[in-house]
Amino acid sequence: MSQFWSPAVRDLEPYVPGEQPRDTVIKLNTNENPYPPAPGVAKVLADYPIDHLRRYPDPSSLALREALAAHYGVHVNQVFVGNGSDEVLAFAFKAFFCREQPLAVPSISYSFYPVYCDFYGITPHKVPLTDSFEVDLDAFPTDNGGIVFANPNAPTGHAHSRAAIEALLDKHTSRVVLVDEAYIDFGGESAIPLIERYPNLLVTGTFSKSRSLAGLRIGFAIGPADLIDGLDRVKDSFNSYPLDSVAVAAGVASIKDDAYYRACCASVIATRERTTAALEACGIEVLPSSANFVFARPTTIEAGMLFDALRARGILVRYFNKPGLDQFLRISIGTDDEMDYLIDAVHAIVGEK
Amino acid sequence: MSQFWSPAVRDLEPYVPGEQPRDTVIKLNTNENPYPPAPGVAKVLADYPIDHLRRYPDPSSLALREALAAHYGVHVNQVFVGNGSDEVLAFAFKAFFCREQPLAVPSISYSFYPVYCDFYGITPHKVPLTDSFEVDLDAFPTDNGGIVFANPNAPTGHAHSRAAIEALLDKHTSRVVLVDEAYIDFGGESAIPLIERYPNLLVTGTFSKSRSLAGLRIGFAIGPADLIDGLDRVKDSFNSYPLDSVAVAAGVASIKDDAYYRACCASVIATRERTTAALEACGIEVLPSSANFVFARPTTIEAGMLFDALRARGILVRYFNKPGLDQFLRISIGTDDEMDYLIDAVHAIVGEK
Repeated sequence: MSQFWSPAVRDLEPYVPGEQPRDTVIKLNTNENPYPPAPGVAKVLADYPIDHLRRYPDPSSLALREALAAHYGVHVNQVFVGNGSDEVLAFAFKAFFCREQPLAVPSISYSFYPVYCDFYGITPHKVPLTDSFEVDLDAFPTDNGGIVFANPNAPTGHAHSRAAIEALLDKHTSRVVLVDEAYIDFGGESAIPLIERYPNLLVTGTFSKSRSLAGLRIGFAIGPADLIDGLDRVKDSFNSYPLDSVAVAAGVASIKDDAYYRACCASVIATRERTTAALEACGIEVLPSSANFVFARPTTIEAGMLFDALRARGILVRYFNKPGLDQFLRISIGTDDEMDYLIDAVHAIVGEK
Repeated sequence: MSQFWSPAVRDLEPYVPGEQPRDTVIKLNTNENPYPPAPGVAKVLADYPIDHLRRYPDPSSLALREALAAHYGVHVNQVFVGNGSDEVLAFAFKAFFCREQPLAVPSISYSFYPVYCDFYGITPHKVPLTDSFEVDLDAFPTDNGGIVFANPNAPTGHAHSRAAIEALLDKHTSRVVLVDEAYIDFGGESAIPLIERYPNLLVTGTFSKSRSLAGLRIGFAIGPADLIDGLDRVKDSFNSYPLDSVAVAAGVASIKDDAYYRACCASVIATRERTTAALEACGIEVLPSSANFVFARPTTIEAGMLFDALRARGILVRYFNKPGLDQFLRISIGTDDEMDYLIDAVHAIVGEK
């Protein structure tokens, strides 16, 4: 707190990212992919023409947008890219949700959404999840300044079908509906094909999860050209070159290696299903997940105690000490070996009780 | 323009970055460094442990902040880093300048400042330059919501001494004074040593100019810990991980190679002085520059015509078609060969008239 800060900055409650420990532990706390990026990414870095770095990047990141357009079967002017999907979301909140009406958000979802609301002075209208911890698509109010939710949702893991999202879009036509698909590649149905028919649908995605590139900060949005134009206006009023040249080239290489990406996603899904069954066998309730994590509720031990006990064994998961979430642990899906180590530890801890 | 955009977004006038042409030309339009980044940067990319990219970066970019702290002789908690100095400036405007009082800015300076004002709804108070095109430090009003200017100024190139900035700080103590030192390494005196005595001084810098890393997007701010805390609050309310892991490692390598960096700056300065003399010999007025560009006013031909004629010969410089600037061309300093080519072309064009 300082006399020099802008008045509104004193009241911000910043987002708290998951810990990045420097000592070696089994790290299952920030939904990173356990597999390395596509081999083509290594080649991009190894062969990068260093002299090129003295030049500014292409401010429109055209090469990456073209690769994404081809991958998703959309036009390049329907694609926006930014410095991680966090930045894309931050731009989208400015571009579409700075209105007098409140922004409809699930009460439990990505915890950055209320932070963006704070940042821009947007009033959030929080819509409770259903009893089965699903985003309640029927409960979004008709009079809203926009709707945002993650699908699959975080940290719960549930995904709605494309048909369910289509039904939502049929009801809400006057403001932007933003579907944050950070985790879509682990079993969800993307809403991207709907952008042709719904002029108010914006879908965001990231290279941080399914493409194993959290370290390079690449996010994107896909939507009608009109909405992409709005994002461009905001970007060019904030930071014209958010993506560096190496990230753009690495992102293109990642997209080109479709087989590798699909194989990694399939491995994560298989490990998730196996982990779910094994945790349930330890008496842990696991919500159905379409993401690269599971949201798990221990029944014979407090979640906070299990978090501490796992940590003592060198396993880091995520515990949100907040009402509605504090019965659960969010556990990222690692390699099979990492998950075996986790399951053995859970067994031992629950057995020790 | 779209019904879905937030009302304020319709009125934004985004920044227009200098052109990044794809065909080969002599590119003297965006103040890029003509020399490649430090050799250590090449090694960082070639040897980068790719598997590391699946992990999120350290959100605090500690390694790079430590390197900058050592380089500038400050404490690590007096250093902030971001995705280019544009992002650092965007965060600073939010952190310090969102106030009812207008923000004092020179009428001619980095053209992104009024764009940030627009973005946040800050009223700019534009202070004219002196007759000799210098930032008029005595003319900033006492009642302001902050002061921001570039030193050396862009696009004019003039730099004030540290003593002059100290005198300014003695007069303005209640709001943040932001000195944007993007071009300081080409002959200016940095204000960084003053941060110990002035709790309201924030200095920003970039790796895009003197360190030849425009393509990697690395900017920084140095100031009292209190102000750095304010920037951190804003960052963590917008985008927690603005710098990617490769950029952090490359930035550290750049800082470590101090001799290379000094040699590149010295070469640019020598070429600038030679270029200035040669342009003056062609009848072009050149403002004294402490930056890696010169601001040059042709006397026997319209600036816009000279711009077009240079372009026709494959030489791209920057022409700002705005009142007060439209008599000038801003010419970045390239290699000696590039400047010889430019000077020959100017000779030929002015001679042809």
